[in-house]
Amino acid sequence: MATEQAIRLLQELLGPRLGLSKADLAAHGKSESYFPDMPPDAVAYPESTAEVQGIARICAAERVPVIGWGAGTSLEGHGLAVQGGVVVDFSRMNRVLDIRAADMDVEVEPGVTREALNEDLRATGLFFPVDPGANASLGGMAMTRASGTTTVRYGSMRDNVMGLEVVLADGRVIQTGSRARKSAAGYDLTALFLGSEGTLGLVTRLTLRLHGIPEATTAGICAFPDMNSAVAAVTETIQMGIPMARIEFADAATAQAFNAYAGTDMAAAPHLMVEFHGSPESAAQDAERFAEIVADHGASPFRWSAREEERRALWSMRHNGYYAILASRPGARAVVTDICVPISQLARAVEETQADIAASGIPGPILGHVGDGNFHAILLIDPERPEDLTEAKALSARMSERALRLGGTSTGEHGVGMGKTAFMRAEHGEGWDVMGELKKALDPLGIMNPGKLVPPTQ
Amino acid sequence: MATEQAIRLLQELLGPRLGLSKADLAAHGKSESYFPDMPPDAVAYPESTAEVQGIARICAAERVPVIGWGAGTSLEGHGLAVQGGVVVDFSRMNRVLDIRAADMDVEVEPGVTREALNEDLRATGLFFPVDPGANASLGGMAMTRASGTTTVRYGSMRDNVMGLEVVLADGRVIQTGSRARKSAAGYDLTALFLGSEGTLGLVTRLTLRLHGIPEATTAGICAFPDMNSAVAAVTETIQMGIPMARIEFADAATAQAFNAYAGTDMAAAPHLMVEFHGSPESAAQDAERFAEIVADHGASPFRWSAREEERRALWSMRHNGYYAILASRPGARAVVTDICVPISQLARAVEETQADIAASGIPGPILGHVGDGNFHAILLIDPERPEDLTEAKALSARMSERALRLGGTSTGEHGVGMGKTAFMRAEHGEGWDVMGELKKALDPLGIMNPGKLVPPTQ
Repeated sequence: MATEQAIRLLQELLGPRLGLSKADLAAHGKSESYFPDMPPDAVAYPESTAEVQGIARICAAERVPVIGWGAGTSLEGHGLAVQGGVVVDFSRMNRVLDIRAADMDVEVEPGVTREALNEDLRATGLFFPVDPGANASLGGMAMTRASGTTTVRYGSMRDNVMGLEVVLADGRVIQTGSRARKSAAGYDLTALFLGSEGTLGLVTRLTLRLHGIPEATTAGICAFPDMNSAVAAVTETIQMGIPMARIEFADAATAQAFNAYAGTDMAAAPHLMVEFHGSPESAAQDAERFAEIVADHGASPFRWSAREEERRALWSMRHNGYYAILASRPGARAVVTDICVPISQLARAVEETQADIAASGIPGPILGHVGDGNFHAILLIDPERPEDLTEAKALSARMSERALRLGGTSTGEHGVGMGKTAFMRAEHGEGWDVMGELKKALDPLGIMNPGKLVPPTQ
Repeated sequence: MATEQAIRLLQELLGPRLGLSKADLAAHGKSESYFPDMPPDAVAYPESTAEVQGIARICAAERVPVIGWGAGTSLEGHGLAVQGGVVVDFSRMNRVLDIRAADMDVEVEPGVTREALNEDLRATGLFFPVDPGANASLGGMAMTRASGTTTVRYGSMRDNVMGLEVVLADGRVIQTGSRARKSAAGYDLTALFLGSEGTLGLVTRLTLRLHGIPEATTAGICAFPDMNSAVAAVTETIQMGIPMARIEFADAATAQAFNAYAGTDMAAAPHLMVEFHGSPESAAQDAERFAEIVADHGASPFRWSAREEERRALWSMRHNGYYAILASRPGARAVVTDICVPISQLARAVEETQADIAASGIPGPILGHVGDGNFHAILLIDPERPEDLTEAKALSARMSERALRLGGTSTGEHGVGMGKTAFMRAEHGEGWDVMGELKKALDPLGIMNPGKLVPPTQ
C-alpha cells in the first residue's frame, strides 16, 4: 500500500524521528476546537529543509497527504488529517537563525514560537509584534495569516513577513520575497503562501520584520453604557489620528467571566482596553486625549497607567479571556467564532449577534479587536449534548452570514481550515474556484493538506 | 483573421469607443522609457465592467492579446503591445464611486488618477497616500504594486488596496478581499493581482484604504558630507521610533540638476528631504529630534518649516527631479533604474553605483526613497548614440545584480514589464517558474499582456 511504502521510505530518511506510536498519532490528531479527532498515519519531525524536501518527494511519489503542524493552537482544525497521511511537526526546526538589528529583520525556522522569538530579541531593543494570544509557532501563524491585539498598529502576518522559503508539493524549494522593504518584482508569492494553510507547500524558513520596543507604553481600561458608544469612541480616536497600539473590547458577559476567573471587579458592561506606544510624553498625551474622548461617549473614568506590572495584569487578563470564559461553564467546550466587519458596522454586528446568542440556549461572551472590526463569540457547549453543538454551529453560521451581509469576512484571523469552508462560496463567489485553480497548478496531486480551504475536488 | 474578427466584434460592442486611427494606436504604442514603439491593433475604451468582460470574451475566443492601459506613466513598458492585440484604455472608467468616511475607505474605478481622487477627498479630511510622483491611474498603480515618497509611513499599494474587482482572461468577474480591515479567508487574491501587471486579468474596480490628513506637517532639507552619514542618520531615526512620513535623498549630481532647473542653491552634496505628520506639537518635536540626529552625523543645519508653501516648494522640487535631471542633458532620453536593498546595504549600493556610473561615459544622478532602501539612477542617454543605450543597459544590469547580491530586489517599485524580465531568474530562481505556472492556471491561452513578467513560453 502507498501509505506503508511511504512510511518505510520516511523511516529510512528520518530514523527515530518518524513517530508512529499511538500517543504520537493521537497528539497530532486533535484540535483545540470542536472537531472530531483525525489522527495521521505518521508524524515526521524534520530538522532541515532538505529533510522536508525528502518528505514531500516521498509523499508525492506515493500520493500520501502531507499536513504541516506548528504548535497545534489552530482553532479551525487546520492540522487534522482528514484523509490520513503524514503530519510534519516543525518543533525540531525551531532556531532563530539570524537577527539583523540594523535592518530590523530576522530569519527564523517555522517551529520558533512568537514568545521564544521575543525572548531572543530582548537584548536588541526590537520585538516581533504579531500577537494572536496563543503562543503559536511562527510557521503556523504565517500559514493562517494570523493577527491579534496589536494588528491595529503593527499589522498582521501579511504585513510582517518579508519572505519565505517554501517546499512545494513536488519537492522544489523556492525563496519568496527578499530582504528589501518592498519590491515590484513579479507576483507576490509571499502573500500567496501567507494564509494558504499548508495547501500549497510547507514553509521551512521565514524572514520577519521587527519593530523597535517603544520607549514608553501606557495602557488602561474603561466601561461604556453600550456597544455603540464604545465603537463611536474608537472611531473618533482613529479619525483624530491617535495611534493605538492595541484596542480590545469585552462585552458584559466577558467582564463577568473575568471577575469570576481573576477576581476583578469590572462592571457588567462593555469595556475597552487600550494601549499606546511612543515617547513618555506622547504615550501619556495619547492616553489623556483618549480619556477625553471616552468621557464624551459616556464611559466610566479611563484609568490608565504607564507602570509595567499594571499593564501586564491588564493584558494577561485579556489573553486569558478564552480560559476565563471556558471556566464560566465548567466542563464546557468552545466553538470560537471569528468575524470581521467594517468599523461602521461593528456595533450593529455585535448587537445582532448578542441578541441571536441570547435567544439560543447557549452562553456566548464576546470579545475582540475593535480597531480592526474583528470579534469572537466564545460559544460554550456541553460536550454531552449534541444539540448544543448543532445550535452553536447554527449561531456561528448566522454570524458568518451577517459578516458577509455587512461587507465583512467570515474569518478575520483564525482561517478557513475545516470550520469555514462552508462559507467560502458565499464570501468569494467564483473567486473560490480561482483559489482551487491556483491550488491545482501548484499541487496537482492534491496531497498538501487536503480537505482544507479550497473547493472539494470531484 | 483572428484579429480582424475580434475588431469587428469589438466594434459591435463598443461602437465609436473602439479606436483604430493611426494617432490612437501610436499614442498607445509608446512608453515613457527607452523601449521601441509597439502599437496595438486597436484601442478599446470601455465604460463598464460588463464591457470589459465582453472585451475579454471576444479576445479569448479569437486568441488576441489584451493589454490594460491606465495613464501611460509606466517606466518599464508595461503597456506595449509586444504581440499586437487590443489595448484596453480605462480613461472612461474614472468615477469615484463611494467615499465611506466612517470606514476610511473608498471605491473607485481604475481610471481615476491619484490626484483626482485626492481632489475628491479633500472635504472629508481623508487622503490616499500612495504617491509614485507621476499622476498615475489607480488601476495602473495597483497593477505595478506602486509605491513612492510616503511608503515609509503609509505603505505601498500592497498595503492600501483592500479589494479588487477583476475580469479574468476567460471573462469571469471576481471580487477579491472585502471591506473588513483584515481577513484570513483563504488565498490572498488581492495581493496576487497587485503587481501582476495585467498578466492575470483586468482590474475594473478597487477598494482603497484612506488615511486622515494629518493635523500638522513639518518638512525640511539638509546636506551631508557623504552617503554613509546620510544613511546612518536615517537608520538612527528609524530605530529611535521617530515616524517619518517621507524621507528622500538626492545625490550631489541631483542637487546640481535641481539648482540648474529650479534656481535653488543646494550644495553639491548628498541631501535628505524629510517630512513629519502629527499634531502641531509632535510634528515640531519630531523635526527637532531629527535636527539633533543629523547634526550628530555632520549634516548642514536642518532647515525645517511647518508652512505649507515652503513644504510644497520642497516636494514639487522632488517630484520634478526626473525632469530636472532630464533637462541637465538637453535632448537626452532616460533609462530609469529602480533597485531596492536592505537599509544596511544602502550606502554601499549607492556608492558602488556612483563609481560604476562615473567610470562610464553616461551622466546618472541618483535619487530615491532612503527609508525603504529604494533608489533610482536616471541614466541620461543620447538617443542618437546607440552605444549610450547599450552602456546604460549594462549599468542598469549591474545595478540589478548588485541589488540581488546585497539581499535586495531588481525593482523596488517600477515593476518588471519589458525592462526587468532578464533579472527574474536570478531574483526568483524556481519561484519564477511558479509564477509561470500560476499565470498558466489563470490565463491558459496566454492572452493577458503577453511578453511581460513571467517566463517566456516555448
